[in-house]
Amino acid sequence: MRAERSFKLRVGILGGGQLARMLALSAHPLGVEPWILSESQGDPAAQVSSYWMKGKISSRSDLQRFLGKVDVATFESEFLDAKLLQSLSAQTRTPVYPHPTIIETLQDRWTQKRLLTKWSIPTAPFVKVTSRRSAERAYQELGEKMVLKQRRMGYDGYGTFVVDSLKELSAIPWERSSQHGWIAESWIPFEHEWAILMVRNTKGNTVELPLVKTFQKDSRCLWVAGPAKPPRSFEKIRGKLKVLLSKIQYVGVIAFELFSRKGEFLVNEIAPRVHNSGHYSLDALSTSQFEYHLRAILDAELPNPLCLSKGFAMMNLLGEEKSVDLRPWPAQAHLHWYGKSENRPGRKMGHYTVLGRSPQTALKEALRLRRRFVV
Amino acid sequence: MRAERSFKLRVGILGGGQLARMLALSAHPLGVEPWILSESQGDPAAQVSSYWMKGKISSRSDLQRFLGKVDVATFESEFLDAKLLQSLSAQTRTPVYPHPTIIETLQDRWTQKRLLTKWSIPTAPFVKVTSRRSAERAYQELGEKMVLKQRRMGYDGYGTFVVDSLKELSAIPWERSSQHGWIAESWIPFEHEWAILMVRNTKGNTVELPLVKTFQKDSRCLWVAGPAKPPRSFEKIRGKLKVLLSKIQYVGVIAFELFSRKGEFLVNEIAPRVHNSGHYSLDALSTSQFEYHLRAILDAELPNPLCLSKGFAMMNLLGEEKSVDLRPWPAQAHLHWYGKSENRPGRKMGHYTVLGRSPQTALKEALRLRRRFVV
Repeated sequence: MRAERSFKLRVGILGGGQLARMLALSAHPLGVEPWILSESQGDPAAQVSSYWMKGKISSRSDLQRFLGKVDVATFESEFLDAKLLQSLSAQTRTPVYPHPTIIETLQDRWTQKRLLTKWSIPTAPFVKVTSRRSAERAYQELGEKMVLKQRRMGYDGYGTFVVDSLKELSAIPWERSSQHGWIAESWIPFEHEWAILMVRNTKGNTVELPLVKTFQKDSRCLWVAGPAKPPRSFEKIRGKLKVLLSKIQYVGVIAFELFSRKGEFLVNEIAPRVHNSGHYSLDALSTSQFEYHLRAILDAELPNPLCLSKGFAMMNLLGEEKSVDLRPWPAQAHLHWYGKSENRPGRKMGHYTVLGRSPQTALKEALRLRRRFVV
Repeated sequence: MRAERSFKLRVGILGGGQLARMLALSAHPLGVEPWILSESQGDPAAQVSSYWMKGKISSRSDLQRFLGKVDVATFESEFLDAKLLQSLSAQTRTPVYPHPTIIETLQDRWTQKRLLTKWSIPTAPFVKVTSRRSAERAYQELGEKMVLKQRRMGYDGYGTFVVDSLKELSAIPWERSSQHGWIAESWIPFEHEWAILMVRNTKGNTVELPLVKTFQKDSRCLWVAGPAKPPRSFEKIRGKLKVLLSKIQYVGVIAFELFSRKGEFLVNEIAPRVHNSGHYSLDALSTSQFEYHLRAILDAELPNPLCLSKGFAMMNLLGEEKSVDLRPWPAQAHLHWYGKSENRPGRKMGHYTVLGRSPQTALKEALRLRRRFVV
């Protein structure tokens, strides 16, 4: 921490979306000023803090000015210029967490997968792809079904293509490859999808949030339910993930998305930030992922995560209709609207959490309530 | 609700202190824009919302402009011009909750006490006082110890004097009486102090939060612990308070501070708003008093309050030292700093909540942690 001035502590958040918004809402009670760098004051995060700076996270001068204002900085998306961030962090002497060096590795699916194999963490077989030609070779190698993913900037299914015949390769926008490159992975006929969040602070203390089951449709998360009882086979991968965090000296919240098949776990993806699969923590845990992330980067103690109910389910409110009706705020739903001014199909407009006697009953109730929302 | 425009709903909050701040922080996740009317953008509530209007809540033109902007309005302090608010509410067709008419009754300790006796709710004997002369008569009537209170604008011990001899009456600033008037109450040698919050929405549905024990020093609340098991004798007064809410068509959160002595309960004071004694609800209940208040005035369903642990304690962080150190954020403390820029002795700078296996263990831990804070 740079400042020894005791009273006002400023955390800079790069980006103005819902993750930045929920970070900012969690910063205020800690007595920390959440400074937002975003393009419009109408952005979800800019609405919830008077400490807002207009600017682009891709602009060197905006970033430099912003880092100069704050005591420590973080971000809501790993898709940023890690090298630029690192050099400006050094120049302004404002620490950025998670460290830009590890962001550089994790923002690229190819180097992310290589990191996993380096530390013997099970993951689907993969091959680097640079052209349609190399995609054909990958397809021969990986089997009858593969997933082709953009190496960078892919999220919520954007830049992801499932390929189960050679001729489907003609539908891929190869012109993108020059910009981002591709990675091909074996398609895993998984039985379940899971997610787990871990937190590591600057002192190296680590905390692990409950394992949850997740359900995706068209590569978008629809719901999450938990706490899931970890199968015995999970222990092995959990231990390896903890070793990984320590080896890369990670600081902040990190999300691991996993597949399981026949009792074996594979890591699907890593997100070096707060994550949709952890939104349940706002209502179902004694400490939310957002507070954990702030505590971690502020060098504070990490509380043990206490589950506040025997079951919980988190439902995403994805845009479908043209309009949005924020009411009727059903009694059982712990609501989190993101303050977005425009609705688009598939856009994350908000989420809600339901507590219950078990993950199953909470999920059942969450699914039932979904019909009451016009989004 | 005036607006049928579905997407943006605006709740106006009169005042910029910590209660307005926590209301605003609870409004954002409901998808509601919390509009703040306060004098400085550095005010605790103004920091947490981009929807801020500079102005005084005592100014007719500021109030009128502000009410014209929002769909429904509320306030953080009952000490406002109720008649002015009522007329501007009618003029702008913006509902204000709780209703200004009931505010007028409750903001004055004399009419508040008369309301209690009207509905046969036990309270300490009281006499209206207008001068030193009438105070002397009150002292003869009420017994050897009485409490003299300003009728209006008194809070946290301000404007309150304990009188246990006639000669102490010479220390009272009588010149204030022309402005506010006084009320004298019998001193109650209570065994315990308690508080309970109730909520009533526009449809008339009512919810009651857990009873808590409170501890005051120099008329300032130091801590609150609960959930307190209500003694059997509490049932009677609880029923009467519910009837009262229905009779006065109350809308919003209301706080009742109580004394108990030899198993009998007396209402000490009523606060027609969110209240310090309910801050524990942010961390210890499934729904906070701030969300309840917003739900009530927005005509929304009221969830049942679910206690998230077997015990909780809330500790106020009152200013003592010159400086404030926001760190070290102890793991067990759910912190709520109010973002105040200046520390003064006795000033409410923040609070924290501790969860535990019982109210006693939570309180013990909360008291232990207090030493770690420099406020």
